[in-house]
Amino acid sequence: MEENSRPLDALNAARNKTVLIDLKNGLQYLGKLKAFDIHINVVLDEAEEQKDGETKRKLGTVFIRGDAITTISPA
Amino acid sequence: MEENSRPLDALNAARNKTVLIDLKNGLQYLGKLKAFDIHINVVLDEAEEQKDGETKRKLGTVFIRGDAITTISPA
Amino acid sequence: MEENSRPLDALNAARNKTVLIDLKNGLQYLGKLKAFDIHINVVLDEAEEQKDGETKRKLGTVFIRGDAITTISPA
Amino acid sequence: MEENSRPLDALNAARNKTVLIDLKNGLQYLGKLKAFDIHINVVLDEAEEQKDGETKRKLGTVFIRGDAITTISPA
Amino acid sequence: MEENSRPLDALNAARNKTVLIDLKNGLQYLGKLKAFDIHINVVLDEAEEQKDGETKRKLGTVFIRGDAITTISPA
Amino acid sequence: MEENSRPLDALNAARNKTVLIDLKNGLQYLGKLKAFDIHINVVLDEAEEQKDGETKRKLGTVFIRGDAITTISPA
Amino acid sequence: MEENSRPLDALNAARNKTVLIDLKNGLQYLGKLKAFDIHINVVLDEAEEQKDGETKRKLGTVFIRGDAITTISPA
Repeated sequence: MEENSRPLDALNAARNKTVLIDLKNGLQYLGKLKAFDIHINVVLDEAEEQKDGETKRKLGTVFIRGDAITTISPA
Repeated sequence: MEENSRPLDALNAARNKTVLIDLKNGLQYLGKLKAFDIHINVVLDEAEEQKDGETKRKLGTVFIRGDAITTISPA
Repeated sequence: MEENSRPLDALNAARNKTVLIDLKNGLQYLGKLKAFDIHINVVLDEAEEQKDGETKRKLGTVFIRGDAITTISPA
Repeated sequence: MEENSRPLDALNAARNKTVLIDLKNGLQYLGKLKAFDIHINVVLDEAEEQKDGETKRKLGTVFIRGDAITTISPA
Repeated sequence: MEENSRPLDALNAARNKTVLIDLKNGLQYLGKLKAFDIHINVVLDEAEEQKDGETKRKLGTVFIRGDAITTISPA
Repeated sequence: MEENSRPLDALNAARNKTVLIDLKNGLQYLGKLKAFDIHINVVLDEAEEQKDGETKRKLGTVFIRGDAITTISPA
Repeated sequence: MEENSRPLDALNAARNKTVLIDLKNGLQYLGKLKAFDIHINVVLDEAEEQKDGETKRKLGTVFIRGDAITTISPA
């Protein structure tokens, strides 16, 4: 990443890669990053919901509303 | 979904299909996705409210305010 | 409702009909939908406030601020 | 109220009348509605603060910030 | 106050007078109203912080961020 | 401060002076006010974090996001 | 930092340096500041998540949504 990069460049670099998304409610979503927008609304494919490191649900595709998110990191 | 798709494309693809919507207050709404807008305000048909996997109410049509939503996934 | 309908169309179809509105604070308002706007500010007539399915107050007309609302459904 | 009325019309009709305002923090304000704006910022005259139906404070005039409000109804 | 007054007119009338400001976190600030803006950001002079009616701190001047405020009333 | 001053004038007058900033999460930051903007994002120098009046961390420079702040007062 | 500097200048000065970011949910992120924008969305490299001073996770790159952040300080 070069010096004056913007935060969304990092999301763009993660497209089609597996990311782990943490939500304000303590849930986590693991999946392949397919889409995002400036509100940080996100779509994951092959997603699963986790709590305390354990898989709770297999979701396939999931749309996550941006304002529910705290962090997004490569898994 | 192609590489530069936007999050709302995923919602558009789910139109008239059954989705499960999770809210910040822990409730879930299962129903057929009839409408949504850029605020992620959503309308479901043949909807039911669930808590901890159990059906609480049959609702028919339900309007869900976008800022109450965390995730939307195909059911 | 046709395929490309918008969420506010569903509210428009509910005008002058009885709806049940759920708030983020757990209260519910049952009444006839008289008015709404793009913020989902709502006015009900012949309204009553409910908690856990029990009527708490008869309110006549009530203005509900949009950002307090989670869902609106026909009663 | 006619069919296509807007929510703020209901507030306008309540000007100079006694209203009860519920806040997100559980407090209630009873008083004469003197002013409001599109943010639902409100000014009451001859106001009192109530909790669980009991008067806590006599306030005279009170300015209430709109985003603290859940409902406004005629008293 | 005349019929079509706006909420900020009430704040303007309270300039240089002592007001009591209630915050969402339950704290209260008593002081002379020196300045406010459309976000309801406020500056008090000769201010003190109170909790449950007891003075906690003497603050001199205090800037209060608007979105932390629920009510402002003359003291 | 003159009669029609604005809230940010008070912050401007506090530039390079020591201020105490209270956050919504109950933490306090004491330091020299170096910068602020219309969102009330703030930068302090020679800052320390306090909880219940006790110093928790020496921070040097700290950027504080405006929407986390409740009050700013001269120390 | 000169007298009329803006808060984002402080973030700019911290680019490529190690910072500690505190979130509203009590978690902390330590890492090299690679990018930020006006919403205070941030990207850290070589990041780790901490709770109560203990490392919980090594994250590599992490995107942090601005509205989840309370403070950013050099580590």
